[in-house]
Amino acid sequence: MTATLRPGDREFLEEQRVGHLATSDAAGRPYVVPVCFAQVGERLYVPIDAKPKRGDPRALQRLRNLHARPEAVLLVDQYDEDWRSLRWLSIRARATILERGEERAAALAALERRYAQYAAMGLAALGLPVIALEPMAVRRWAAMPKGV
Amino acid sequence: MTATLRPGDREFLEEQRVGHLATSDAAGRPYVVPVCFAQVGERLYVPIDAKPKRGDPRALQRLRNLHARPEAVLLVDQYDEDWRSLRWLSIRARATILERGEERAAALAALERRYAQYAAMGLAALGLPVIALEPMAVRRWAAMPKGV
Repeated sequence: MTATLRPGDREFLEEQRVGHLATSDAAGRPYVVPVCFAQVGERLYVPIDAKPKRGDPRALQRLRNLHARPEAVLLVDQYDEDWRSLRWLSIRARATILERGEERAAALAALERRYAQYAAMGLAALGLPVIALEPMAVRRWAAMPKGV
Repeated sequence: MTATLRPGDREFLEEQRVGHLATSDAAGRPYVVPVCFAQVGERLYVPIDAKPKRGDPRALQRLRNLHARPEAVLLVDQYDEDWRSLRWLSIRARATILERGEERAAALAALERRYAQYAAMGLAALGLPVIALEPMAVRRWAAMPKGV
């Protein structure tokens, strides 16, 4: 049971530079971090990146959580002091951690295209995992719906 | 076991206008929504507001989750294309849903002071619940730590 992103969803995702990834730990306790992301085909990809996180990137709570419970919600929203412009997209997804392979390479290339910062740091060459998100359900909200 | 917000935390929270509230449902599945918030004393408050949510505000997923598991993470972060300016504060909190009483009234007053939009809509008079967050653990991250 996968969900399909609509053209309006894809445009909105393309415009937004940061999202928030919610996961739960083995005991079901909530967790959330800000993340960068890119779209490739029907999936979304979140890198484990080289922003200094202190310590082993593979020990990050988000990865431990996804090993325990391979489900995440990626929320992408737009804040504006004019609340008529508020909008969000919430994507419940099955998460897979990619350590190698073609899908991971394509995701890293997309992330470097989308974020000059990643290209500058040579993200793809760092050997870090990528989180693949397969949308299972999509919810959309806008203060002023445009029928998207 | 509560955690205390530092002066630097409070300043950062005051500057940021939106946060992200992660909760889990009864089965431990993750969930996250963008929220407004205000500080009063040692606690943070998140309103259930009148931005059109369609349907009964009390049936919102975030409230159902908190009834099932009274724990949340409020993440407040700052995105900037200069990644040296990235910063976040993550507050794991015990959550209580306030339906009435003085604490709720003080929280609504603080929210109306902080957000002119709430004052304009008369948030305090709408009779809606407020989520009280009592910090249990605070994590801080900055790309360029300033020793705060």
